Amino acid sequence: MKIDVLTLFPEIFPGPLGSSIIGRAIEAKKIEVNPIDLRNYAHDRHKTVDDKPYGGGPGMLMKADVLFEALTDLKKDDTLVILTTPRGEVFNQKQAERLSLEKHILFVCGHYEGVDQRFIDKFVDLELSIGDYVMTNGNLPAMVMIDALARLIPGVLGKDESSSDESFSNGLLEYPQYTRPYEIDGMRVPDVLISGNHAEIARWRLNQSKELTKSRRPDLYSKLDKNI
Amino acid sequence: MKIDVLTLFPEIFPGPLGSSIIGRAIEAKKIEVNPIDLRNYAHDRHKTVDDKPYGGGPGMLMKADVLFEALTDLKKDDTLVILTTPRGEVFNQKQAERLSLEKHILFVCGHYEGVDQRFIDKFVDLELSIGDYVMTNGNLPAMVMIDALARLIPGVLGKDESSSDESFSNGLLEYPQYTRPYEIDGMRVPDVLISGNHAEIARWRLNQSKELTKSRRPDLYSKLDKNI
Repeated sequence: MKIDVLTLFPEIFPGPLGSSIIGRAIEAKKIEVNPIDLRNYAHDRHKTVDDKPYGGGPGMLMKADVLFEALTDLKKDDTLVILTTPRGEVFNQKQAERLSLEKHILFVCGHYEGVDQRFIDKFVDLELSIGDYVMTNGNLPAMVMIDALARLIPGVLGKDESSSDESFSNGLLEYPQYTRPYEIDGMRVPDVLISGNHAEIARWRLNQSKELTKSRRPDLYSKLDKNI
Repeated sequence: MKIDVLTLFPEIFPGPLGSSIIGRAIEAKKIEVNPIDLRNYAHDRHKTVDDKPYGGGPGMLMKADVLFEALTDLKKDDTLVILTTPRGEVFNQKQAERLSLEKHILFVCGHYEGVDQRFIDKFVDLELSIGDYVMTNGNLPAMVMIDALARLIPGVLGKDESSSDESFSNGLLEYPQYTRPYEIDGMRVPDVLISGNHAEIARWRLNQSKELTKSRRPDLYSKLDKNI
C-alpha cells in the first residue's frame, strides 16, 4: 500500500512509525509512507499556506488554492483522500480494517484553525477524527491511523503477533494477562491459568472480558451479540 | 508540568511533539517531556522486559518485576500513573482538561500483547485508550494525550490560537470555514461571511455547527444542552 501524507511537518515522518512493527513493514516494502511538504505548492515569497477566516474569528485556515494545486497533482483515480479533523467521523477498528484494503491513501493533515471548506467539498473522500479531543494539528492523528491500518495488512504482523485475540476484535475488551514471575509482592497468578485445562482457561478469559467490558464500556457491551 | 514516559522506544520522543506549539512549550519550559527507557530496569544479560502469558495465547507480555522496579523508582506522591491500553477508559476533551491540571504524569506505554495485570493493580491510577482501535504499541497514544493536554496548559496556546471556539469546547463540531481567495473553481465564500453583520455570522455559524453535529454525530448531539 502507498500512503502519502500532505503535511506542514514532513520531517516528523515516519518518526514513531519507523520503530517496531510498522518500521519493519516499511523496510520490507509492504507499505510505503511518503511525507509531502504542503509548502511545495505555495508560490509566494513567504510560502504562505494559511490566511484569516472570512467572517472573523481566531486562528488561521489552510488556504484552498494551495490545497487545490496539491491535490490536483497528487490525487489519482485510485486515491482515497482522508482529512484528519476533529469534525470527522470517529475512526475505529472496523474503519482500520476497511482502510487496510486500499491501494493508495492520501492523508491531508489539518493544521491551524482548520481548512477552507471548498477544499473539503471538492477533494476529500473521508473526514476522520481519532477521538473526541482537540490536537495541535493532524499529524499525530495521521500517524495513529497509519499505525492501526498498517498492522492489519497481511504479512505485517508476525505469526506470533496475532491480531485476532485482542481488544475490539470480538467486540470485547481483553482479559487480564499474567506472566512470570509467578509471585510478586505477595500477588500470585490466578490458579486457573496454571491448571493446564484449556477449556476452563478459555471460559475464564471470556468471562473476564465480558465483566470488564460491562463495567468499563457499557456502550460496547450493549452492542454485543449476546450469543458470544 | 513534568511528564515522564516509560517506554521501549525512548528515541522517538519528543518526535512529533517537538514541532509546532508543543515544541515551543517544551522550549519555554512550560512542560517537560522525559522519555525513560524501560530496559534500564531489566537486569539480565539480554535486558528482557517481556515473557509469555500464563495459560497460553499469542504474543508477549511486559513483565511485572521490571515494571515494579521502574515504578518504585519513578512514582512519587504527586505522580499520576497512566497506562495507555485499548482496554482503558476512552480519552476525551474533558479528561484532557482535567489532566492539564496535574503536576506530574507518568505515562507507561503498553507494548506487546499487554502488561502483567498485577502491575496495573498495584501502580496504575488510570488506564486510558485514545479510541476503539488497536495500535502497535502505546507510544503514539501517549503522544496524542500529551499533545491534547499540553495545549490546554495556560500560556501554551498563543493569544491567536484560542481553544474556546473549536470542536468539542461547546459540545458541537466546528462550523465550515473559508479564507481567501474569495472564489476558486467557481465556488464562492457564503454571502453571510462577507456581510459584516457579526450577529448574523454568529447565528449562521451556530446553525451550521448544530446541523453538522446532528447529522454526523447524533451521539454528541443527543447530549447537548438544548438551550445553546
